Amino acid sequence: MHPAGSDPPIRATRLLRFDGVTGEPADDAVACEEPLEIRLGDTPLAVVMRTPGHDEELATGFLVTERVVRSLADVAGVERGAPSGGRRAQGNTVRVTLRPGVEVDLEALRRNLYASSSCGVCGKATLANALAVAPPLDDDLRLPAAFFRDLPERLRKAQAAFERTGGLHAAGLFSGDGELVAVREDVGRHNAVDKVVGFAARSERLPLTGHVLLVSGRISFEIVQKALAARVPVLAAVSAPSSLAIELATAARMTLVGFLRGRGFNVYGRSERVIT
Amino acid sequence: MHPAGSDPPIRATRLLRFDGVTGEPADDAVACEEPLEIRLGDTPLAVVMRTPGHDEELATGFLVTERVVRSLADVAGVERGAPSGGRRAQGNTVRVTLRPGVEVDLEALRRNLYASSSCGVCGKATLANALAVAPPLDDDLRLPAAFFRDLPERLRKAQAAFERTGGLHAAGLFSGDGELVAVREDVGRHNAVDKVVGFAARSERLPLTGHVLLVSGRISFEIVQKALAARVPVLAAVSAPSSLAIELATAARMTLVGFLRGRGFNVYGRSERVIT
Repeated sequence: MHPAGSDPPIRATRLLRFDGVTGEPADDAVACEEPLEIRLGDTPLAVVMRTPGHDEELATGFLVTERVVRSLADVAGVERGAPSGGRRAQGNTVRVTLRPGVEVDLEALRRNLYASSSCGVCGKATLANALAVAPPLDDDLRLPAAFFRDLPERLRKAQAAFERTGGLHAAGLFSGDGELVAVREDVGRHNAVDKVVGFAARSERLPLTGHVLLVSGRISFEIVQKALAARVPVLAAVSAPSSLAIELATAARMTLVGFLRGRGFNVYGRSERVIT
Repeated sequence: MHPAGSDPPIRATRLLRFDGVTGEPADDAVACEEPLEIRLGDTPLAVVMRTPGHDEELATGFLVTERVVRSLADVAGVERGAPSGGRRAQGNTVRVTLRPGVEVDLEALRRNLYASSSCGVCGKATLANALAVAPPLDDDLRLPAAFFRDLPERLRKAQAAFERTGGLHAAGLFSGDGELVAVREDVGRHNAVDKVVGFAARSERLPLTGHVLLVSGRISFEIVQKALAARVPVLAAVSAPSSLAIELATAARMTLVGFLRGRGFNVYGRSERVIT
């Protein structure tokens, strides 16, 4: 168990290190991965494979970005809880308590995976479904191109565990005036985003109007969907966006910044927010 | 719609390319991402976000690696089907027909996510659950360290779309004598593995005794679980394994090769298969 903010989310391992043809035993650190059960009261909601640490934020962010709750006002408390069947692994369960009378959308998770439009499964239905629960953005943030230049380097420097394991994704939240507000790491790309959004929810920063979210990997449809639920106007990444990520960003009037490396980058979707 | 083997899985997009402070309009190719509905007869089983192409392989591999079917002998046919609600997006549905009398495990997917052991949710229960449906490997494959040296370069050369989009993961299947048997690409790491396993299933190569599976990203628990279901003895990656991936590989007597870059690499789990 790793209480939030204490142990680094890494674990020691024994391996054989080959350099050329011979292998030598060595010790190294790897990114920790463990299941986390998210419960709504006594109802198991989901199990996600995650890196321990900031688990309450992860559970909160997951509920927000998957639209299971409409706002944090629905949540009465988030605490580590006993797992279903016994006393072990207490650190791997988070129990969310809702305010009396709040109705949750337990079908939201299934619906998020399942385009329920009558036209069947296609990109268009998936986009329509995403926009039905999170309408397009109306955010007048404007940023000079130079704003983006050093963001990846600042994210890397703030990552505690990456250098030692090479196996952790990161998400970083920046304010519109360039302050690095929060960085979270996880073996899962989605989890890193959920942890940042959970942090923002729990520190009363939602919606994330005027903010920039930077992710260390690539931008898939689901990452755009999560950013949109948190109302992030500018989503940036070190790597590439997918076709459906660009389509959703365009329809939602979100700005995507891709291939953010060195001085250059690409802008997709709502490009007017980047000024030259 | 992208029939398997024809169109490359990329899509043209319009963007602003910034170099320094000024942005110029440009055209580029991005990795295509679309939902795929996998149906068992008339029952919708799952929707995965994937890169179109090799969809029948993806559906087949998904059923095998998630242990929904016990063997390919249970499957009577795999075909593109009409989606639930209409005529659109026909290319985004695959319908799997089972042989008469075959009972499938529709709860398998839920169980794979949910450690059902009485000790609750913990790494140990997750490992026990994975090993209960796929017992440890007994594979006498032995490979010299030099075998691994050029695998990443050969995978990259065989990747059709990566160079153009920078956004696709790849999985490559190699025989024990170094032949590159199959390469599949996808925006999803899991999907690339499922496509390769589906190819192997449909070409009657399962179980993958004596083979090496190489993935372009990192090795998570779920990638080891999928490789184990296909009985792959050696799983290699360009990036890092997670702690739980190493624990499952060790318990399942699988060999993990991580950080495979240039001449050097690390070996975790069953290291005896790499000889010096």
